[in-house]
Amino acid sequence: MRAFRKDILDISSLSDEEISAILDTAEQMKEISQRPIKKVPTLRGKTVVFFFHEPSTRTRMSFEIAAKRLSADTVSISASTSSMVKGETLIDTARNLQAMNPDVVVIRHACSGAPHMLAGRLKASILNAGDGLHAHPSQALLDMLTIRQRKGDLKGLRIAIIGDIAHSRVARSDFAGFTRMGAEVIACGPPTMIPCGIESLGVSVTHDADEAVRGADVVMMLRIQKERLKGFFFSTEREYAGAYGLNAERLKLAEKDVLVMHPGPVNRGVEISPEIADGPQSVILDQVANGVAVRMALLLLVAGGVRDADAD
Amino acid sequence: MRAFRKDILDISSLSDEEISAILDTAEQMKEISQRPIKKVPTLRGKTVVFFFHEPSTRTRMSFEIAAKRLSADTVSISASTSSMVKGETLIDTARNLQAMNPDVVVIRHACSGAPHMLAGRLKASILNAGDGLHAHPSQALLDMLTIRQRKGDLKGLRIAIIGDIAHSRVARSDFAGFTRMGAEVIACGPPTMIPCGIESLGVSVTHDADEAVRGADVVMMLRIQKERLKGFFFSTEREYAGAYGLNAERLKLAEKDVLVMHPGPVNRGVEISPEIADGPQSVILDQVANGVAVRMALLLLVAGGVRDADAD
Amino acid sequence: MRAFRKDILDISSLSDEEISAILDTAEQMKEISQRPIKKVPTLRGKTVVFFFHEPSTRTRMSFEIAAKRLSADTVSISASTSSMVKGETLIDTARNLQAMNPDVVVIRHACSGAPHMLAGRLKASILNAGDGLHAHPSQALLDMLTIRQRKGDLKGLRIAIIGDIAHSRVARSDFAGFTRMGAEVIACGPPTMIPCGIESLGVSVTHDADEAVRGADVVMMLRIQKERLKGFFFSTEREYAGAYGLNAERLKLAEKDVLVMHPGPVNRGVEISPEIADGPQSVILDQVANGVAVRMALLLLVAGGVRDADAD
Repeated sequence: MRAFRKDILDISSLSDEEISAILDTAEQMKEISQRPIKKVPTLRGKTVVFFFHEPSTRTRMSFEIAAKRLSADTVSISASTSSMVKGETLIDTARNLQAMNPDVVVIRHACSGAPHMLAGRLKASILNAGDGLHAHPSQALLDMLTIRQRKGDLKGLRIAIIGDIAHSRVARSDFAGFTRMGAEVIACGPPTMIPCGIESLGVSVTHDADEAVRGADVVMMLRIQKERLKGFFFSTEREYAGAYGLNAERLKLAEKDVLVMHPGPVNRGVEISPEIADGPQSVILDQVANGVAVRMALLLLVAGGVRDADAD
Repeated sequence: MRAFRKDILDISSLSDEEISAILDTAEQMKEISQRPIKKVPTLRGKTVVFFFHEPSTRTRMSFEIAAKRLSADTVSISASTSSMVKGETLIDTARNLQAMNPDVVVIRHACSGAPHMLAGRLKASILNAGDGLHAHPSQALLDMLTIRQRKGDLKGLRIAIIGDIAHSRVARSDFAGFTRMGAEVIACGPPTMIPCGIESLGVSVTHDADEAVRGADVVMMLRIQKERLKGFFFSTEREYAGAYGLNAERLKLAEKDVLVMHPGPVNRGVEISPEIADGPQSVILDQVANGVAVRMALLLLVAGGVRDADAD
Repeated sequence: MRAFRKDILDISSLSDEEISAILDTAEQMKEISQRPIKKVPTLRGKTVVFFFHEPSTRTRMSFEIAAKRLSADTVSISASTSSMVKGETLIDTARNLQAMNPDVVVIRHACSGAPHMLAGRLKASILNAGDGLHAHPSQALLDMLTIRQRKGDLKGLRIAIIGDIAHSRVARSDFAGFTRMGAEVIACGPPTMIPCGIESLGVSVTHDADEAVRGADVVMMLRIQKERLKGFFFSTEREYAGAYGLNAERLKLAEKDVLVMHPGPVNRGVEISPEIADGPQSVILDQVANGVAVRMALLLLVAGGVRDADAD
């Protein structure tokens, strides 16, 4: 009997019940990280492989702490050291991984769809930790958890997501999650950073940051790749900060009890001013703490029950 | 009382009884990796150091999963991060390692003989995970286990090993293991890839791949370094594939129940065609699964008993 | 109730009682590493983060083995893979780390003072594993333990530290530790390697290696960065070795039962001749073994008790 779905690949493929189950489980997991002994034996004897084809500190560390607090065994393959990857196709890598019989493979990959490909070929559960420009479901889930904790519900909230939407898998997953939970989502950025046709994802678009922030219950700022700014026709960071950065003055347009969010790492003074990043409305560190809790929940739900694969 | 030998350095130094003990233990270990809780407490409190002076994903990961399923503590030193290695001689590194009192050091090193040097200086057990062009005993043992599982016995089997024999420590260790178990071994490759005098290892040599495959019970294909092909006077990969690659037509020359093997990672379409790598005769993934089992057996045998060193 | 101080940042901030407590605890810890099962459950469920912004094999490995023998969960962030570090300020990194609720952060950083900065901002304990040119307290503690084991007491000992004093955080921490314990400390090196005003640290200075070694109870040789020698106006390694290296002849000037120490890794034939590094007076490998014990003691003392932070 499988207690939960095998893989977590993106938000769209999750049912409402599954999303609720993840968030509710994450609330319980959060308590474990507050204990003096931050460890439960739930995943003892389970093997979790971290297959990070793109560099990552924050997400990998969050998943690794999550796995260890659940007592799982962890093994890492990174892009740079991975001859497994260089010399062979991703399908071969998948098959080789499977032969070592892991329970969960947490994958980050530069190619959109790589986790789906693995999911179809491995008996192990696949957790997508970010694939190309496609999805970053654990990030969206921790964002949803953070908002839910502060606002009770996402239904009817006005949420602005501001920045380089086109290059953000976080934005894509947030769109899917937030609209699903009944929020009104506004995507905002210069025309060069907004992909065509994203209205079809159920979000509205504006190129005016003031308009996006006005009346918002949540403002999510995206990290800007400084080295890309020129390609977007900004001559300086300051110019971008003026047009799209979140500062105290712009934030006054939002609701009084607005939440300020950011997936990190923050470029202080570029997309967000320091006093806002550290201000009372910022829940950026709640996001980080919730990240561990959500990833514990995901690991627990896909690997904690008795699985068909174990009976083979 | 020492239950088993201290070090596993190469196949030649193992007795027939020791090889049998390793393979028999590996069979038992394989079952552990199939359980829902893939962990036994046998090596709890033992420290296993991975000292990989050459990059490796596959072998390192296999050893690491093996160590963790036995509950050992693992610590890694890699070539790139190792100031320990750069600033000092290998002898000093060995002494420093010993001072931290590890139970096992799993070493991969570009220099043939490095594991032997360590073995003579450390109280810890040394497991050779590949040294220069010399030996890769755990690979040969997993190959022997894979063949034994399918064929019952290696005695009297005709085994062809095809490819760049000269640069392959896998081939060297397989020669030693297969001939020991009574198999007839044929080394095959272009003259540039066959070292002089390897007949002294008890194998016969041919430069004709069809001749090597004809009547074979096992065909082991070696990975070809594509960037080296020119040095071997092949103008293209296709030329190599035609002359020495394993494809459906060539495989027809072998016995009906031939096993196709490859130490991985596979260059599809070069040394082996995709339909053969994935075909019913391929046991390539069995090799990977057996790799974890054999390495669990090696770790268990050298570190699982009460050792003299512990009494110091 | 906190059993011990929260952070170990440098020797100067420790009281005499704290230093004694660390060394006494380290003596107990040393015994654990000699057992067949080298593991105690003391730090089970504690999360130790290794945040190494500078490469390190020896110190990281020593800390990692120490943490694992105490059953702590360990997670590493390294400089090269750390987008966490690149994209954000150290303060942001600190906050992000804290949000994941680690119990201990072991930090090595190129900037002097980085561990202090973290200590003021994290509820987690900070262990300084080397910061810039400032301090390396665990090294000084293991040096003190090594001398105490052989000499009973540091009081009244004559200790010469020879080499590139100016670039050595080990020397700075040793000065603080050795003088505190009542030793007479002589700093020795060419004028280019001795910073101005170090007499204020309570040590005497000489540029004559023979003078430094004469009558010494302990001679600590510092590793010389070979690539820096030209900047110090030495034309060859041999020239440095002649003027400041420790060889058999020079060592005759010391007390009969002199201890020869070196923080490693050793440049044989440069700052120390091989027969001295391996000779009967050398306690270099005792230092390495004591390193694990001291780091176990530090981890245990800061994280082993019930901490205020746990009650939050």
